[in-house]
Amino acid sequence: MSAYDELMAFQRETEALAQVAGRLGWDQETMMPRGAVDQRVEEMGAMESVLHARRTDARIGDWLAAVDERALDETGRANIRLIRRSFARNTRVPGDLAAELARVTSRAQGVWAAARADEDFAAFAPTLEKVIALRRQEAEALAEGGDLYDALLDDYEPGASGAELEAMFAALRPRLVALRARVLAADIPPPLDQEFDEAVQMALSRELALAFGYDLDHGRIDKAVHPFSSGSGLDVRITTRTSARDPFNCFYSTIHEVGHASYEQNIDRAHLLTPLGSGVSMGVHESQSRIYENQLGRSRAFTGYLYGKMRDAFGDFGVANEGEFYKVVNRVQPGYIRTEADEVHYNLHILMRFDLERALIAGDLGVADLPGAWNDRFEADFGVAVDKPSNGVLQDVHWSVGLFGYFPTYTLGNVYAGCLHAALGKAVPDLDTRLAAGDTSPATAWLRENLQQYGGQRVPRDTIEKACGHAPSEGPLLDYLEAKFGDLYGV
Amino acid sequence: MSAYDELMAFQRETEALAQVAGRLGWDQETMMPRGAVDQRVEEMGAMESVLHARRTDARIGDWLAAVDERALDETGRANIRLIRRSFARNTRVPGDLAAELARVTSRAQGVWAAARADEDFAAFAPTLEKVIALRRQEAEALAEGGDLYDALLDDYEPGASGAELEAMFAALRPRLVALRARVLAADIPPPLDQEFDEAVQMALSRELALAFGYDLDHGRIDKAVHPFSSGSGLDVRITTRTSARDPFNCFYSTIHEVGHASYEQNIDRAHLLTPLGSGVSMGVHESQSRIYENQLGRSRAFTGYLYGKMRDAFGDFGVANEGEFYKVVNRVQPGYIRTEADEVHYNLHILMRFDLERALIAGDLGVADLPGAWNDRFEADFGVAVDKPSNGVLQDVHWSVGLFGYFPTYTLGNVYAGCLHAALGKAVPDLDTRLAAGDTSPATAWLRENLQQYGGQRVPRDTIEKACGHAPSEGPLLDYLEAKFGDLYGV
Repeated sequence: MSAYDELMAFQRETEALAQVAGRLGWDQETMMPRGAVDQRVEEMGAMESVLHARRTDARIGDWLAAVDERALDETGRANIRLIRRSFARNTRVPGDLAAELARVTSRAQGVWAAARADEDFAAFAPTLEKVIALRRQEAEALAEGGDLYDALLDDYEPGASGAELEAMFAALRPRLVALRARVLAADIPPPLDQEFDEAVQMALSRELALAFGYDLDHGRIDKAVHPFSSGSGLDVRITTRTSARDPFNCFYSTIHEVGHASYEQNIDRAHLLTPLGSGVSMGVHESQSRIYENQLGRSRAFTGYLYGKMRDAFGDFGVANEGEFYKVVNRVQPGYIRTEADEVHYNLHILMRFDLERALIAGDLGVADLPGAWNDRFEADFGVAVDKPSNGVLQDVHWSVGLFGYFPTYTLGNVYAGCLHAALGKAVPDLDTRLAAGDTSPATAWLRENLQQYGGQRVPRDTIEKACGHAPSEGPLLDYLEAKFGDLYGV
Repeated sequence: MSAYDELMAFQRETEALAQVAGRLGWDQETMMPRGAVDQRVEEMGAMESVLHARRTDARIGDWLAAVDERALDETGRANIRLIRRSFARNTRVPGDLAAELARVTSRAQGVWAAARADEDFAAFAPTLEKVIALRRQEAEALAEGGDLYDALLDDYEPGASGAELEAMFAALRPRLVALRARVLAADIPPPLDQEFDEAVQMALSRELALAFGYDLDHGRIDKAVHPFSSGSGLDVRITTRTSARDPFNCFYSTIHEVGHASYEQNIDRAHLLTPLGSGVSMGVHESQSRIYENQLGRSRAFTGYLYGKMRDAFGDFGVANEGEFYKVVNRVQPGYIRTEADEVHYNLHILMRFDLERALIAGDLGVADLPGAWNDRFEADFGVAVDKPSNGVLQDVHWSVGLFGYFPTYTLGNVYAGCLHAALGKAVPDLDTRLAAGDTSPATAWLRENLQQYGGQRVPRDTIEKACGHAPSEGPLLDYLEAKFGDLYGV
């Protein structure tokens, strides 16, 4: 066997073990008996320890040194690029720092949850300081003299930089703040006001998943407290949730996760269990979930189809026609909580988190000053004062588990989705006619053909650029939001 | 850390990984999307390769050599005994033989299934020959000059020998053949003859699991084609199945698996993720499933309780009273298939498999002569000729996957259950009164206290002997069967 073949055989086994660890995570959120937690912690720890040992195995360095890249095809070179990158990142971080980070963040989540329940930021502050200090140490090991925040960001969006995002987000913020103010000054329709049978929600949710191309021969749908998608290749599972008074929560969680899962399911099968066999970055992943959920799923055309399905399933539920239904689905309302935010508000939540976490990692903002900085920024962008920490600085789990550099990929995903949607509209002139009939296939086929099939073959930015035909920018997203909500609210 | 502590920390991680591999098996039979098979094969292979590397890791030999056993307590010495045994067995088998066996048996199962579907033993014969040759090679590596069959048996029932089982089974066979003939000459009641709602079966099945002490905080119940129990410690899951016309299949599969699962759940928590933290042998495991299912679950007292529950759940289902119901539950009928056999027939199926597989491993019986030997023996003990291979030599999966030495543990389990039941009856004089009220707790508490809690602490034979107060023998099982079925059929 050549060095390349040996390396790929080793890598394939590592990818298979990573899938097993992922499936254990799925099990924990869907199937695991509640008394099994303590044992599961040990099982996950054992899997992580096996994976860490493999990812830092010195033989990878030897194989990489021995590979003759000129003899490889494009796929081979892409595999080597990703393995080289991952090996460098994994070996730069000292083992005891990685272990300390794992220990501290696993405890920190519990501390955060308790502090949030008690509305007591001070109880969380020392833990957060520790997490930040450790992540800074990790970033120093990774950055090799470069920017610390960029080193962390690179884990989630390889190739992106804080400076580039700063410029993009600076262009987004004023137009979003202005759009928000215009929309909230208009008449907001009331929400749905009745109960919807949860088993019927799940049945319709399954229909929607199939309508968006989810492959149930290689996936399944279960309920979870926080919906997620899990797995790559031939086994990509999604979860959703139901709420008796809010069926949109179920339907749009499902469509969102189908976006993530379809990306994984549609990667060229030749890449199965290789570094190219899963989504290339968090931002590109989020672009798929968002375009499925929002640009397609919340479009006037598709909501018209959904209105009919809901009338069939639930009878008259107090919404007179498709036009009214489109407004209810896209109801804009003020709120403190990111995860409940509509399309107009969502990115404003992210923009403030990006600025704050970048300042925390740079050392320009101390943990003691974080709540004040949060509250000031929130009032500036959202026009209301934060009433309590659980509605403010304590609302998200991310920082407690050390996820610095992750938040901006949500907005990057929306920006990418905006670009893809504009390109899709040009490529498929009858898109709306087809969506109005519940047929998403021209859109999902275009995304599969132009983006999803490539998996990790192209770097994230190229993945978007080759699909759209131009470098990604925030313009299409802003144009889409202003047109959609301007039209909806007559503003 | 002492050598013992280092060894146990390593072992604990291995046990955790083994639990993960087990849960992957559970997932495959209950949750996995059908298109995921090819990927799952790679995932399982990767887990097995990690486990094999750990189980043969040379450091285990170093630690074992360095441990000062005199400094250990009873638990410590038991751990060392089991680790020493497992390390010796795993390192005696050459790596390429183990790999070849895994490859051949994984393909053999498919060959067997196709041959069974085609009623074509000749299509399976070359594969079976290969499997036997490899298992003989493995046995030679393990036996170090001793008996080959005993070396294989030792994997499933440590300490047992073919000669000892031969003597025990020789005592069972004539009395079972005679009992069978007497019973079949009597009037056999008709089976149930209507459909039973499968969701109601599952609900009642859950009630029965709880009635037998299954802990759903550390377990769950799902459906599977072939019911099984899976996992140790804090996460022990069972599966069952439903058949519209045969609710007993569901109820007694459930109670049987609850017996296995309760054994795992009731092991002293101090042994969690150590070699002592799971059931000590297949025979002892089967004794728990069988005593739950048969001696308790199919007793006159408990079936009286079940009759009431079934009347509540299904209304009048054509059985007039508790006495008739007891007969229907314990209906004896001739049949070819082991897995469908009643208490009178079951061990006769095992006895013939034991004799045949022992002769195959000894080289006294060739594969070409196996169908003839099977058919002759079946006719001798069951009084009917085998009509086709799927009802005869091709009915069981075991030999195709290399399980030689496994079959006798089923009957050993029944023999152990007979001994335990006799001892239980003396210890709990009002057992029947309690069972008649659906209260199994005096029985399950006695089993937990006297057997289950010890896990791997005592060797299998001691586990039974200490619980019963005497060495295990076939006498109590025979007395129980003759009394029960003699009474039922008036013979």
